[in-house]
Amino acid sequence: MLMKRLVFHLALLSLTMLMIPLALADPLPSWASGDNKSAIIDFVKTTTDPESDSYLPESRRIAVFDNDGTLWSEQPYYFQLAYALDRAENAPADTLSPALQTAVNERDLAAILEGGNEALLEILDVSHSGLSVEAFQADVADWLAKARHPDKGLAYTEMVFQPMLELLSYLRDSGYTTYIVSGGGIDFMRVFAEDVYGIPTQNVIGSTGNLEVSREGDRLALIKRGDIAFLDDGDGKPITIQRTLGVRPAMAVGNSDGDVPMMIWATEGEGPRLGVLIHHTDDTREVAYDRESAIGKLDQGLDEAASRDWVVVDMAADWRTIYAPDLQASPASDATP
Amino acid sequence: MLMKRLVFHLALLSLTMLMIPLALADPLPSWASGDNKSAIIDFVKTTTDPESDSYLPESRRIAVFDNDGTLWSEQPYYFQLAYALDRAENAPADTLSPALQTAVNERDLAAILEGGNEALLEILDVSHSGLSVEAFQADVADWLAKARHPDKGLAYTEMVFQPMLELLSYLRDSGYTTYIVSGGGIDFMRVFAEDVYGIPTQNVIGSTGNLEVSREGDRLALIKRGDIAFLDDGDGKPITIQRTLGVRPAMAVGNSDGDVPMMIWATEGEGPRLGVLIHHTDDTREVAYDRESAIGKLDQGLDEAASRDWVVVDMAADWRTIYAPDLQASPASDATP
Repeated sequence: MLMKRLVFHLALLSLTMLMIPLALADPLPSWASGDNKSAIIDFVKTTTDPESDSYLPESRRIAVFDNDGTLWSEQPYYFQLAYALDRAENAPADTLSPALQTAVNERDLAAILEGGNEALLEILDVSHSGLSVEAFQADVADWLAKARHPDKGLAYTEMVFQPMLELLSYLRDSGYTTYIVSGGGIDFMRVFAEDVYGIPTQNVIGSTGNLEVSREGDRLALIKRGDIAFLDDGDGKPITIQRTLGVRPAMAVGNSDGDVPMMIWATEGEGPRLGVLIHHTDDTREVAYDRESAIGKLDQGLDEAASRDWVVVDMAADWRTIYAPDLQASPASDATP
Repeated sequence: MLMKRLVFHLALLSLTMLMIPLALADPLPSWASGDNKSAIIDFVKTTTDPESDSYLPESRRIAVFDNDGTLWSEQPYYFQLAYALDRAENAPADTLSPALQTAVNERDLAAILEGGNEALLEILDVSHSGLSVEAFQADVADWLAKARHPDKGLAYTEMVFQPMLELLSYLRDSGYTTYIVSGGGIDFMRVFAEDVYGIPTQNVIGSTGNLEVSREGDRLALIKRGDIAFLDDGDGKPITIQRTLGVRPAMAVGNSDGDVPMMIWATEGEGPRLGVLIHHTDDTREVAYDRESAIGKLDQGLDEAASRDWVVVDMAADWRTIYAPDLQASPASDATP
């Protein structure tokens, strides 16, 4: 009897030891099995297999990711706009017109958008200009630590997609360099990109405001100016990719029409290429939106994906988890924007 | 006698075996021993030693290098200008004014410079605009293969500094990432930077022209426009470093006043910092120039170096070799510009 029990325990132990490497062998545990997961894993396997015709040397293993809506959520409005609104709420008197100040204080997006780009730039100016990059980033870090999402009640950095964190790690473990190429502000994203995504600041590409060199005595400082130097969205994305990387990425991941030129640029190149579109289909755990959405509109992208053979990730079906596992228990009932 | 000889040979063998690792242990064989070489090696050693107070994690081991005059020669005029002049020599009729065309054909730099920036931009326009980045780079590659330096008779890519190649390799072997930050054109430098310096395109930062997205059917192309989007020189250098890297480099290497703001920006940061200025002091093997030179003027830099404790490399004294060793025999008698 004792012997049998011992054998049983040893068998169980062996089984457990067998299962550990099996579990480890799945690099994307939050992704449900299926064609999309297989297509991604197959791409990484063949491009890193020296025996494969699709093999890529490490210097060409470049994967670019949009940020808003691709690596973290973007509803009911871009999180950087949430920051700008929070800061503009406390704007010094006479900085904003009374009507705009009221719209800001009430988070009345429709009224703000009525003012067009001019109103948006006025709001951004309150928090994004006249200070050094370091001072701006210290303020963003402070905000990120305290601010909570209006619907989910989560910190914004808790609203990153667990399946994408796994994909980023899997790519890096396979010798890929992962870059962000986002319409979001470069100085804003760099505050959390390394901690949250494992992407160091030098691999974060985004929209840029103009900078001015100022000198105090011998010391040099870089001061943010409110005007936009380059908007890294739409056609701007292949341009900044060419400017910054100088090669077409082997893999491009996005979620909206603003990512389509980047994905075309990446996937039209020679050799192995992979385009991945994240389709927001989950109205229970996140927000479902596509062709008609004011934020993160995905219309042309869905059409291009079909003809260009891009992987279209169905968040509801393909992702077993949306946010980090320990946040899944959070109430999601009031998630509709 | 035989025994003595055997012992002698064994002793010699042991000595030889001892000397191999000793020779291998010098990461900068083309650098003469002295304070400058020691300062560089000490910096790399302490910043990569986990026991040292100056230890830097790999993500912060960032070294930036100017290109013209720092990694390769720049006299009698920048090599990219040599390319532009060669291409403008065959400009279609009526592209340049007759006087400018004559100045170009005679390589009359004084006459060209009389026309100011306008003349220079006209010349650059001939070879640098209206074509795709790929087509431009194919033409540059073609030129680099055939063109020869007017004084040295060497291919331009043979005029890279051997001691700097050793420094780049030494830094990378020590976990540093090496970047070019140059006033030269980014598309131009990327043609040879990986082959010649081991610096992949994504780590090449430089001046940029505007790009335009064009579509032929479904296919997307990036077309170079002649106008300059950003001049990466002087105050432009800390700005592109901030834009592209988002962190201050730990080490900055330059050779002219245009590199001074970059070097100040790098060396004024917290923690271990190293600034290195290459001083062109060797009129026999290269060209001696500094405070009065039209190309690569080094005036403010020499003053700043003293007060800021930068390493000032004396090319004549500190470099045992200028170009790659097998090119040292080339006639250098007609080297004066």
